[in-house]
Amino acid sequence: MTNENKKICDDNVNGTDNITNNTNKNNNDNSTKLDYRIERFNKQLDFIKEIDKLKQVLRRTILLDASRRENDAEHMWHMAVAAILFAEYANYRKDLDILKVLKMAVIHDIVEIYAGDTFAYDEQAHIDKEKREKEAADKIFGLLPEDQRNEFRNLWDEFEAGSTIEAKYARAIDKFMPILHNYTTKGKQWHNFGVTSEKVLAKNKIIEEGSEFLWEYVKYIVEDAVKKGYFPD
Amino acid sequence: MTNENKKICDDNVNGTDNITNNTNKNNNDNSTKLDYRIERFNKQLDFIKEIDKLKQVLRRTILLDASRRENDAEHMWHMAVAAILFAEYANYRKDLDILKVLKMAVIHDIVEIYAGDTFAYDEQAHIDKEKREKEAADKIFGLLPEDQRNEFRNLWDEFEAGSTIEAKYARAIDKFMPILHNYTTKGKQWHNFGVTSEKVLAKNKIIEEGSEFLWEYVKYIVEDAVKKGYFPD
Repeated sequence: MTNENKKICDDNVNGTDNITNNTNKNNNDNSTKLDYRIERFNKQLDFIKEIDKLKQVLRRTILLDASRRENDAEHMWHMAVAAILFAEYANYRKDLDILKVLKMAVIHDIVEIYAGDTFAYDEQAHIDKEKREKEAADKIFGLLPEDQRNEFRNLWDEFEAGSTIEAKYARAIDKFMPILHNYTTKGKQWHNFGVTSEKVLAKNKIIEEGSEFLWEYVKYIVEDAVKKGYFPD
Repeated sequence: MTNENKKICDDNVNGTDNITNNTNKNNNDNSTKLDYRIERFNKQLDFIKEIDKLKQVLRRTILLDASRRENDAEHMWHMAVAAILFAEYANYRKDLDILKVLKMAVIHDIVEIYAGDTFAYDEQAHIDKEKREKEAADKIFGLLPEDQRNEFRNLWDEFEAGSTIEAKYARAIDKFMPILHNYTTKGKQWHNFGVTSEKVLAKNKIIEEGSEFLWEYVKYIVEDAVKKGYFPD
């Protein structure tokens, strides 16, 4: 880095002073801070570059024009917009922390970078899904500086556990989107993978925990899809 | 909708009572509310389905593995994660409303659904960019219920104007990402489109308004890219 870069790095050291170099106390204070600022920024860059791979992780869901499968990056973006749009339908919406929901939306599938997408109706793949995804979480979030690693990991753990109103609502939107896609594309993937209406209702009932309204709508479109022959049953 | 759906719709009418049917005062209150709830939800569904098309709007930026061009949905997701990750480098970070930044990140390129992506270094295309994008904004945000149409439009207008600390920071990340991609892919697209280091520095100087730190880093990698022959100059 040039001297100018160094100056900016020094100027920007704020709130991260907890990362100090205890083994190197004789160094000039500013250059110690700079070393850590650069180390920290490099970790963040490694992470942001690595997750570019999510743009290549394909889901079973197809785009609404049925032209191709959707990838994880596209899904996380679409889900984030949907989470903003449908927030009024969240259970306990008055207490909902929408910032936390949005953070969950844009990171919830990052572990699939190594674990791959596990199809919701693939019973076999679900046997080791948790183990695969936890190992992936260790690896991908492990690239980050400790404070951000903890923040991202806690958000992902909370999402997976579905224990808070934010996690319940985020999971509801996550489940809702592929159903909307499948319904709009006349059940193409439900037919391709032999997914019955019964399976859709059983697998997605947790939507109700996040949004009673969206769950009622899902039941309505599943009923309509049965009538229209969108299911193999 | 079934009676059960109707009940849920009624139960969920909250905070949107401003949408009342003044021309139809003799109707039963509940069914009037339901009509508007369904009308509102249908508008939201139309919007969320329409923006699926962003997954097909290609940018000039290529993925980090150089395999193909990135689309708008992928870019908005990547930018949202980057905005979380790099928030500590935002100017005026202590006053930054990160929720607003995240909302801007996931909607800022939605107008490209009709206006298309305008390459940053295409002077000709920039002549009517503003007009094309404003017309597209009217059309796409026009699908939404009035309150959400106004919220999304205001966020987009604010982002475009770059007048607040949130807009300045969001724009900095928006500009930063393709530079990071181009640098990491050894300037493939800079060469393909004859983009010089001078142009990159001139076109992206506004990064400084959102993050002095990221701007210093950009100057550093542009200097390095010149040395490594990543530019056509």
